[in-house]
Amino acid sequence: MAKPIYVGIIGLGTVGSGVAKILLEKGDLLAKRVGAPVVLKRIVDKYPDRVKLKVAKKLLSTNLEDIFGDDEISIVVELVGGYEPARSFILKAIERGKHVVTANKALLAAHGKEIFTAAGRKGVDIGFEASVGGGIPVIRALREGLVADHIQSILGIMNGTSNYILTKMTDEGSSFGDVLKEAQAKGYAEADPAYDVEGIDAAHKLAIISTLAYGSFVRLEDIYTEGIASIEPVDIAFARELGYRVKLLAISRCDGQSIEVRVHPTMIPSEHLLANVNGVYNAFYVRGDAVGQVLLYGLGAGMMPTGSAVVGDIVDLSRNVLKGTTQRVPALSCAIDQMRSLPIKPMDDLVCRCYMRFSVVDSPGVLSKIAGVLGRNGISIESVIQKGRDVRGSVPIVMMTHEARESDVRKAVAKIDRLDVVTAKTMFIRIENTI
Amino acid sequence: MAKPIYVGIIGLGTVGSGVAKILLEKGDLLAKRVGAPVVLKRIVDKYPDRVKLKVAKKLLSTNLEDIFGDDEISIVVELVGGYEPARSFILKAIERGKHVVTANKALLAAHGKEIFTAAGRKGVDIGFEASVGGGIPVIRALREGLVADHIQSILGIMNGTSNYILTKMTDEGSSFGDVLKEAQAKGYAEADPAYDVEGIDAAHKLAIISTLAYGSFVRLEDIYTEGIASIEPVDIAFARELGYRVKLLAISRCDGQSIEVRVHPTMIPSEHLLANVNGVYNAFYVRGDAVGQVLLYGLGAGMMPTGSAVVGDIVDLSRNVLKGTTQRVPALSCAIDQMRSLPIKPMDDLVCRCYMRFSVVDSPGVLSKIAGVLGRNGISIESVIQKGRDVRGSVPIVMMTHEARESDVRKAVAKIDRLDVVTAKTMFIRIENTI
Repeated sequence: MAKPIYVGIIGLGTVGSGVAKILLEKGDLLAKRVGAPVVLKRIVDKYPDRVKLKVAKKLLSTNLEDIFGDDEISIVVELVGGYEPARSFILKAIERGKHVVTANKALLAAHGKEIFTAAGRKGVDIGFEASVGGGIPVIRALREGLVADHIQSILGIMNGTSNYILTKMTDEGSSFGDVLKEAQAKGYAEADPAYDVEGIDAAHKLAIISTLAYGSFVRLEDIYTEGIASIEPVDIAFARELGYRVKLLAISRCDGQSIEVRVHPTMIPSEHLLANVNGVYNAFYVRGDAVGQVLLYGLGAGMMPTGSAVVGDIVDLSRNVLKGTTQRVPALSCAIDQMRSLPIKPMDDLVCRCYMRFSVVDSPGVLSKIAGVLGRNGISIESVIQKGRDVRGSVPIVMMTHEARESDVRKAVAKIDRLDVVTAKTMFIRIENTI
Repeated sequence: MAKPIYVGIIGLGTVGSGVAKILLEKGDLLAKRVGAPVVLKRIVDKYPDRVKLKVAKKLLSTNLEDIFGDDEISIVVELVGGYEPARSFILKAIERGKHVVTANKALLAAHGKEIFTAAGRKGVDIGFEASVGGGIPVIRALREGLVADHIQSILGIMNGTSNYILTKMTDEGSSFGDVLKEAQAKGYAEADPAYDVEGIDAAHKLAIISTLAYGSFVRLEDIYTEGIASIEPVDIAFARELGYRVKLLAISRCDGQSIEVRVHPTMIPSEHLLANVNGVYNAFYVRGDAVGQVLLYGLGAGMMPTGSAVVGDIVDLSRNVLKGTTQRVPALSCAIDQMRSLPIKPMDDLVCRCYMRFSVVDSPGVLSKIAGVLGRNGISIESVIQKGRDVRGSVPIVMMTHEARESDVRKAVAKIDRLDVVTAKTMFIRIENTI
């Protein structure tokens, strides 16, 4: 067997521990699959006291030079997270001619161009499968499996925490706040849940895979993002009645001219596969012009699933090291200098069907007032549900619209919310039918 | 840009036409993704008259030496299908030092060892993503994405035709025969449907991916195979009543000691994702010890989906050619000389819950006779449905058993079928709950 390939890990938190565990426990399996031993040589962590995993003392260090300065180590695994010092660590590893594996979606979404450009110049590779969808091999699918396709759209459930909360709300009729508290108690949600429930985490992932899929840089600030905090049990109940499920979808589309990218609560038909992705599971529904529709589903987070993806990348890079090849697969599916620069479609131009729930006083003429505003804004109504459910002293009217422009919907909703018969902010949820 | 990589196609049927179409129409996209032009230089087909795709005359030939003897052509795409002459073509391509892409599942299931060994000796690569699951990148997922995992089980809907038939039977309550005729008329089923509806096609695919997943050769003859022809609308209706769907599942499991492999109609809980894979779609539900559960879903056949997978492999091999590397990823996940040789678990030892439908005369004491036979064979009953539906003059009794051994079930059913109160062969369908 060939001589070993040495790996260094920076950051031994949850995912780092999963990666170390796999490398330490599955040496035989990995050696068989790579054709050379893959050896974890060093773990650098700033806080060695926090390390829970049992590893030999000699593996641990607090000194980054024990990795960067070790010429035997050819693969550096960055699992620190966040922008800095993770960015500097990765750039330093690249500068020293080391290949990098990272699960850092926030960093890649914000500084991907800089990092991939530096890696390209130095001729090293960046593995980042674990940055999107945990253990689901979606980056590999886009960059390699579906390479013959013009990707037309990606619809995904890309955040496990918010999917867990929506699933619980759906199954138990509980409120967002109650489920969030429970999820926090169970460790499924962070103390500060904003990153997950406001769609920011999903937007990071959408930025990365849309960039890959369309060969054009999609930045975080390009993505319209709306969270799930305002979804109420009554909306989920109405959705069910209408044959839909409410999911936090990350959506991007490309028609070759422009790119549409957005993250928001979405109603999808209940028989759709994505409607049946529940709990902490993630899924990516990809449409290519040749392959048609492909769905990839699995655990989008967690020590071992994400560890599995990181080690998948370590094996990939080890196979390169063994064969003495680099830059075999362009990091972003095509060379950076060949990336397109497609414009982002303004959110105002979005056209889709909508669910609207109006909170109104229960008096004659209310329906016609609302319908009047919608009509004057070019929004036509497909169906109406009005029944005497009591929500905080007012009555809900639910309407499903035909396809309408986002800008018209917003204008109409703003006007309706100023009507004196309206008792609370109107809820509207976009519908995806034609997926 | 680097100099072109030349490709030759043998066999311009449906899939071949899809591959040629992608290579001819998407030259720019592929060149960007590979870093060099990928050029279709020659198509050899024995029957040039049958070719429907419009291609330049100079591309077409009936002489195989126009591909094998052309030193510029480094990648040969075999899309002839069947055992011979496909096997000889592939071996000849390997002998001439050419990389091979094939969609030929029957050939690989039967002669994979010979082909992969020859390729390994010669130092060329074999791409076979399209042999399993059409456009779904499942081989890539197993061989690369999930390489850190001990794969524990694969459950799949691996044949579109039989899934289409079962879906139609479920949605419309029609009989197997009627739906089959309709499927044949629409071109979804072959004139001789045995290969699809008897589970043979699914068994081919299961043999290939189980070999990959477990690192031990699984042969076609190792696989217990049962088709869907005996499923009746009444079984599907009972399944629904009990909260299940009937699917033709291909199942394999490996506990590290032995391998279980089988293809048969299976009842799965209706909320399971696999239960919601309908029509001609395929899906693979893979469980790994680190990644947990992963599902891959898409079109398992067809000109463009399969074409997409073939071109994905062509790009993969082109990237190798460009970088001057071969055998970077072992064809079967690990080197052939490192494959294990795990025994196949006898079907008789299978333990699972069962649905049984007895056809009996409507008279007192029948239920106790049947229950008596089951009890004496160690099979305990979980629930019973007995109602007066009239099926061909007899009455059905449906039982769901607790976990029972296959050998006991077969013994009991054989005895029951000899009872004079039984009017027709007992139907039994295995249940998968713990997936």
